[in-house]
Amino acid sequence: MGWPRDLQSVLSRIQPVDQILAKQAQEHLDTLTKPRGSLGRLEELARRYVAITREFKPQLQKKAVFVFAADHGVAQAGVSAYPKEVTAQMVYNFLNGGAAINVIARAVGAEVKIVDIGVDADFPAGLALCSKKIRHGTRNFLVEPAMTPEEVMQALLIGIELANEAKAAGVDLIATGEMGIGNTTASSAMLAALLNEDPANVTGRGTGVSDETYAQKIHVVAEALRSHANGLNDPVQVLQTLGGLEIAGLCGLLLGAASCRLPAVVDGFIASTAALVAIRLAPTTKDYLFFSHCSAEQGHRLLLDRLGVQPLLDLGLRLGEGTGAALAMHLIESSIRIYNEMATFEGAGVAARIATETRS
Amino acid sequence: MGWPRDLQSVLSRIQPVDQILAKQAQEHLDTLTKPRGSLGRLEELARRYVAITREFKPQLQKKAVFVFAADHGVAQAGVSAYPKEVTAQMVYNFLNGGAAINVIARAVGAEVKIVDIGVDADFPAGLALCSKKIRHGTRNFLVEPAMTPEEVMQALLIGIELANEAKAAGVDLIATGEMGIGNTTASSAMLAALLNEDPANVTGRGTGVSDETYAQKIHVVAEALRSHANGLNDPVQVLQTLGGLEIAGLCGLLLGAASCRLPAVVDGFIASTAALVAIRLAPTTKDYLFFSHCSAEQGHRLLLDRLGVQPLLDLGLRLGEGTGAALAMHLIESSIRIYNEMATFEGAGVAARIATETRS
Repeated sequence: MGWPRDLQSVLSRIQPVDQILAKQAQEHLDTLTKPRGSLGRLEELARRYVAITREFKPQLQKKAVFVFAADHGVAQAGVSAYPKEVTAQMVYNFLNGGAAINVIARAVGAEVKIVDIGVDADFPAGLALCSKKIRHGTRNFLVEPAMTPEEVMQALLIGIELANEAKAAGVDLIATGEMGIGNTTASSAMLAALLNEDPANVTGRGTGVSDETYAQKIHVVAEALRSHANGLNDPVQVLQTLGGLEIAGLCGLLLGAASCRLPAVVDGFIASTAALVAIRLAPTTKDYLFFSHCSAEQGHRLLLDRLGVQPLLDLGLRLGEGTGAALAMHLIESSIRIYNEMATFEGAGVAARIATETRS
Repeated sequence: MGWPRDLQSVLSRIQPVDQILAKQAQEHLDTLTKPRGSLGRLEELARRYVAITREFKPQLQKKAVFVFAADHGVAQAGVSAYPKEVTAQMVYNFLNGGAAINVIARAVGAEVKIVDIGVDADFPAGLALCSKKIRHGTRNFLVEPAMTPEEVMQALLIGIELANEAKAAGVDLIATGEMGIGNTTASSAMLAALLNEDPANVTGRGTGVSDETYAQKIHVVAEALRSHANGLNDPVQVLQTLGGLEIAGLCGLLLGAASCRLPAVVDGFIASTAALVAIRLAPTTKDYLFFSHCSAEQGHRLLLDRLGVQPLLDLGLRLGEGTGAALAMHLIESSIRIYNEMATFEGAGVAARIATETRS
């Protein structure tokens, strides 16, 4: 596919994770004072983290949650329970530390970085806001493509750049978050196109819409697929036509993370849609991602199944912002502490298995 | 049932949790800057925590994991992959901070309290060990009841006392852990009796035994049920005949916690067996418990289903020690921070739902 050179170069830098190191990590885990494999998925997390970072003695200190915010032209089609002004209002709430993601990030010791990549409002200077606005919200994809080819590429490159900056600043683990009234509709439309699914199977109630609005969401998704039938030929075109600036930014962030071996935690429905595009562009990206949770949003389970991944948590969350991803950071951190801090059988003077008990 | 007065008095102090306060807690959650119900089970956790503590503005600072350690006479029947000396060796490992529970407890900021309630070894004085040894391990229940009626009651009362001491010391949340070579066999035997289940359905591979040892475990459980058929008439008798001193201690701990409104997190297979006995003795106890995870040990899912509870995590853990419970403490703490720290719609100047979007 003929991507611009910038993107092409990032995609080509995404290398396989180190499976030999993963094996050595498991061998180390097997020396620790616990029955082999008895920490289940915590062992998988530690093994994968080692394979991603290529550090046999990895550290996990600095954590950051990137919350990309943007507005959606399709919001004017009446697909949300909230007015579109809420996107900007929530940006202020994030900056004041009052949103759910702020609280959970504090609980896990992660920094929250708010990225304005396309909010339909102007923010005063001097805020702790990462200002990367490409335009004041996307266009309404019922009328025309949400973005131009240049805009979607710009959004991808912003995400890539932020991942590289995080890596350079010593961040060990990132998580994806988003805010944008209308973005479950954009994600559903993208998934219907990318997975070739019936709109009803991948469209949910988002923030909790009424029956009428839910029917309207499904109608909007079906309409969009019909009217853009000839313009959804590759993942980037789907993103450009139906997506959001924050979804494109997240997609870039994940590609950028994979390209610089920075482990990334994927949040819910919208972040997983961004991850799907990233994986379509560079399948190896998947090995750099931790899928944090299965959201209550209809379609997320289907998407995770199609990706062949089992999320870590299933708590009925449907908020976004990166809340599920931030919670899962604690599990990943616990797994690394297990890996780094536990005593070995030999060191602790604990007897190994009885010789006849050979099953591992 | 004619329990001794001490136990009877504790059971009578277990009062219903405050459902009115739970409702008020949900009303508070609904004022926070997120769609209603969008934090799923985190909202349930906060609501339940408020109902248990009867504090509309609850705190969750001080956390403690109680690890009860004891040996099992049935270990001599060859039911484990590890020699029974490992129980005492692991106690030293706990005291040195090198076991999995130490690491995870550090990650969640919980204190670990090791209780020797029946390890078959003598520990020197001066260790940071809570010494409550009743005897050097239980008797082999293939030959005779594991405990006398006095011993099981003593173990229950030790657990009750420790819960009360924790409450008095300002602990906000406790978790249950255990260590005892042979204790999955004891738990399986108890469950087969209490749930009237086929031994094969409630017997798993514990620390990961070989096919031969697994067959032996099932045989041992079936034999025990057969030989004690006339002595398994109530939950305490099942505990006395087939259980372990650490299982009885945990059962007491949970009853004690419920009696003084101290929320308690239940770990895996063995702790859930202790919880089942507690709930049989005082059904209201269940409302004070958070079931942390579904372990990989066969029979745990069945037990959780019978209890009608949905665990918070499903990570394939099968280590015990309180590891799953300690991990879940982080989710409960996150839920309380959400409840206490998030901004309200009004306070943050975020628009509420569109009036026509009435679905909650």
